[in-house]
Amino acid sequence: MMLNPPPQPRISSKLIMPFVKSTMNVFTTMVKIKPNITAPYLKEDGHTTYDVSGIIGFSGGLLGSVIVSFQMETAHQLVNALVGAEVETNSPDFADAVGELANMIAGNAKKDLGLVTSIGVPSVVIGNCHIICRLTGVPCVVIPCHTSVGDFAVEVNIKPVA
Amino acid sequence: MMLNPPPQPRISSKLIMPFVKSTMNVFTTMVKIKPNITAPYLKEDGHTTYDVSGIIGFSGGLLGSVIVSFQMETAHQLVNALVGAEVETNSPDFADAVGELANMIAGNAKKDLGLVTSIGVPSVVIGNCHIICRLTGVPCVVIPCHTSVGDFAVEVNIKPVA
Repeated sequence: MMLNPPPQPRISSKLIMPFVKSTMNVFTTMVKIKPNITAPYLKEDGHTTYDVSGIIGFSGGLLGSVIVSFQMETAHQLVNALVGAEVETNSPDFADAVGELANMIAGNAKKDLGLVTSIGVPSVVIGNCHIICRLTGVPCVVIPCHTSVGDFAVEVNIKPVA
Repeated sequence: MMLNPPPQPRISSKLIMPFVKSTMNVFTTMVKIKPNITAPYLKEDGHTTYDVSGIIGFSGGLLGSVIVSFQMETAHQLVNALVGAEVETNSPDFADAVGELANMIAGNAKKDLGLVTSIGVPSVVIGNCHIICRLTGVPCVVIPCHTSVGDFAVEVNIKPVA
């Protein structure tokens, strides 16, 4: 007899699909590098271990944050493609561009979410293998993205306000 | 003839003092470790180079974020004092407690700010000497705090929405 699989936390695809669509849209139209997005999965440990992350907070109808995380060289190449010029990774323009990528992904998704929610300004964290701890009690869904210049991840750690 | 000093960005002490008061209040009453807070100063490079940071975003009448940053051992001691028990730095409880410190500081200050503004949920970043890039065009004021278990900093990087 087969054992039943353990119950999974309920995550509505209505919350995740807008971020898949907006990530595809932002990178294809603004960065001009089309990502290959593979199946989103539930993250158990809740740790981001990339080098560069843009964080956007949600409030109002949704609570939590969305994080876009890159390895440094991938971020560098994607920012260069977005800006259309060489941007040094230690310049304020680099952090601004990473924040703007997070902002566009969250802003585009927000339109599709059909909830009265507001997004904050992006915070950008730079640090070799930093960890961004996720909200306790909120499932974190990772959207894995693959491009010709490396992989990155969009992590959705939000829940509707009860 | 003396040259005029360069003009300083205008920062209203009305924006900063609520954070000084709330930091003093939160650590004295909740952590039971009274900080010695020295003169806030304008940060030029806009980099946080501690090990553990709690970030809270502001939206509505104020735009930006407030960051509370610690070295790991100082955060560990302060969290232990807040919780009243030993909290492992790699446990979710540790990140939750750092987030809660940021949340209490921002929440207390918000009451004094006299502006219709809302705060988001805290993000907590862990990583040896990580950098949190500040918002371009917004002055970042550092509130230096000194305690018996080490120093920490509250960084206010917000501006009123025009």
